[in-house]
Amino acid sequence: MENFNFYSPTEFVFGKDTEMDCGKYVKKHGGSKVLIHYGSSSAVKSGLLDRVKKSLEESNIAYVCLGGVKPNPRDTLIYEGIELCRKENVDFILSVGGGSCIDSSKGIALGVPYDGDFWDFYGTGKVVEKALPIGTVLTIAAAGSEGSPGSVVTKEEGMLKRDVGSDLLRPKFSILNPALTQTLPAYQTACGATDIMAHVFERYFTNSTEVEITDRLCEAVLLTMIKETPRVIADPDNYQARANIMWAGTVAHNDIVGVGRSQDWNSHGIEHELSGLYDCAHGAGLAVIMPAWMEFVYKHNVMRFAQMAVRIWGCEMNFENPEDTALKGIRCFRTFLRNIGMPINFKELGAKEEDIPTLVEKFGLGDGKTGGFVSLSSDDVAEIYRIAAKASL
Amino acid sequence: MENFNFYSPTEFVFGKDTEMDCGKYVKKHGGSKVLIHYGSSSAVKSGLLDRVKKSLEESNIAYVCLGGVKPNPRDTLIYEGIELCRKENVDFILSVGGGSCIDSSKGIALGVPYDGDFWDFYGTGKVVEKALPIGTVLTIAAAGSEGSPGSVVTKEEGMLKRDVGSDLLRPKFSILNPALTQTLPAYQTACGATDIMAHVFERYFTNSTEVEITDRLCEAVLLTMIKETPRVIADPDNYQARANIMWAGTVAHNDIVGVGRSQDWNSHGIEHELSGLYDCAHGAGLAVIMPAWMEFVYKHNVMRFAQMAVRIWGCEMNFENPEDTALKGIRCFRTFLRNIGMPINFKELGAKEEDIPTLVEKFGLGDGKTGGFVSLSSDDVAEIYRIAAKASL
Repeated sequence: MENFNFYSPTEFVFGKDTEMDCGKYVKKHGGSKVLIHYGSSSAVKSGLLDRVKKSLEESNIAYVCLGGVKPNPRDTLIYEGIELCRKENVDFILSVGGGSCIDSSKGIALGVPYDGDFWDFYGTGKVVEKALPIGTVLTIAAAGSEGSPGSVVTKEEGMLKRDVGSDLLRPKFSILNPALTQTLPAYQTACGATDIMAHVFERYFTNSTEVEITDRLCEAVLLTMIKETPRVIADPDNYQARANIMWAGTVAHNDIVGVGRSQDWNSHGIEHELSGLYDCAHGAGLAVIMPAWMEFVYKHNVMRFAQMAVRIWGCEMNFENPEDTALKGIRCFRTFLRNIGMPINFKELGAKEEDIPTLVEKFGLGDGKTGGFVSLSSDDVAEIYRIAAKASL
Repeated sequence: MENFNFYSPTEFVFGKDTEMDCGKYVKKHGGSKVLIHYGSSSAVKSGLLDRVKKSLEESNIAYVCLGGVKPNPRDTLIYEGIELCRKENVDFILSVGGGSCIDSSKGIALGVPYDGDFWDFYGTGKVVEKALPIGTVLTIAAAGSEGSPGSVVTKEEGMLKRDVGSDLLRPKFSILNPALTQTLPAYQTACGATDIMAHVFERYFTNSTEVEITDRLCEAVLLTMIKETPRVIADPDNYQARANIMWAGTVAHNDIVGVGRSQDWNSHGIEHELSGLYDCAHGAGLAVIMPAWMEFVYKHNVMRFAQMAVRIWGCEMNFENPEDTALKGIRCFRTFLRNIGMPINFKELGAKEEDIPTLVEKFGLGDGKTGGFVSLSSDDVAEIYRIAAKASL
């Protein structure tokens, strides 16, 4: 176990009807003039936005609104949000939506008090020194952004997807009402579940040894997802299964299951080029990339993949041939993804094998290497795209 | 899963040599004049106290000291601490020690800004409205007080052990250096491990259904303790095993594994009378009480105890007779406790069967009932003491 800092000061307010209290929590965390930032018209149609506004009004909190966040949120809307916040003297941002909406809110939050271009912070490691406080009302269990320090944004020019992380971007509060996710179509629900599982796998595959506590916590989240996801796909109105997935999604990414160990994150990076280029759902891209990444790297630590197979997928250990067990685990993962309706190869995702050189080029590794579990070159990344392109059960 | 709030804003600073930075963290969290509160002479002899003072001096933070915290911390020292803090205008309390020291610090923290008697808050449900901020340098993995809102204190007059809880009592930061626990004798180490496991079991035995995520997280912590505790008992200098136990201890009690479900806490209450009366270690008392409590209540939900047996203790499920599996699990727990050197009955603990009426009397239930999993009467509590008195493997 390695030294670490863990600081997750977000107040999580979980359960039925909790969005009715968002005004109270904005007030508690110091907001007096709010930007309500939201995405599609579904928040309007469902009446959620009206409930949020009503709650703010009951707490005598003024607000302005900015909708239109798209999946893979764009820099263009963030510039608009920053300008609006400055003009209206907004001191608190309330995100009403899923991970894209929260990530867009975080972009605005760090951009408002910054003199230069907010994009300076994305993909550069530049340290965030100030940001407006954020609250969230979550409508999709997936990104974990409701409890994480991260934000991923796409620059429209060139469709570049880049990220930033800072404890200043952790929401002050997050309202998690599982019932709000019940209207989500099966495909998006499955994309969210895949994203949650990927967040754990990025932490699970580590070169740190003697990390039993975080190994077991990772496995706890994955076992939950394996049980609950098919239940939700079969019965979208299952509040309890939605609730388990929602809290699993937060725990998966606020880093409590990942502290004190090296993490990988190559699958996310490799996927980002897919959703950047094709504007597909991030979770769907991960369903295609992550098992391919596993197939490419498993020989680096066969026993860790055998552990995944046995502890997470319930495979019997083949003590004479652990590699056989390791490969079985990866097959179980891909089969699970197919069963919940995810694409497992380029064709099913809508990606093209002939674009691989472009994807590798945009990944931007050049002659360098990257990754916490296995360090990959551009050639390795190309090979993972090729495995992903052709994958089948 | 039930509605819940989860707010754990403590900054955890984990790993080797982290106590050298405590001055920095006091400063970051607003302290300028500190009470260093500590326990036995071991913190002095080991040089830890000197390192803490040096770190404060390097950050130009003034301090006064108050040592002498005993296990099962007493009200008398808290009164002394409150007076000292008022006289010296202390604005931050730094606890250097284990759970008793932190709990004593919390008593002082809530007492300083309060006009009346600090004891008013203990065991009464009176709401804490103000408290000095606290930081901790933890030396024993056990109580979880480094990340919890709770404090348990013993009133010397009558040896009454009572508790209080408030988010205001959650430490601002906690410094967790597993190496500081390496000097702890095997018996105290095992007491700490038992306490950690008990914190999880109090949450695991619930009447809430559909709580897969927290069930699995509970099991993750328990599986870790079952693996790591015997390693530490066999090899006290094993830093990695100490590290896994230390983080498990925090996760076990900051409530991330217990949210959204009913919890029990009768074993803790029933034990408190033992350590109150005999001044024995809380963990040792739990080793005697908790399996006895399990034997008394398991019929309330045989399948939950079978789940414990299978998932936590690795028992084979007896599908024809789940009760057999449930009882096997409880036996595994008691055998584990004996193997790590814990007492399993009154005699081994130094308690007396003839004191049972006194213990029940002090428990103070009268004609009432208490408990989240099974509601117990005074007669039930007496029966649990009797089972505990006579227990054997």
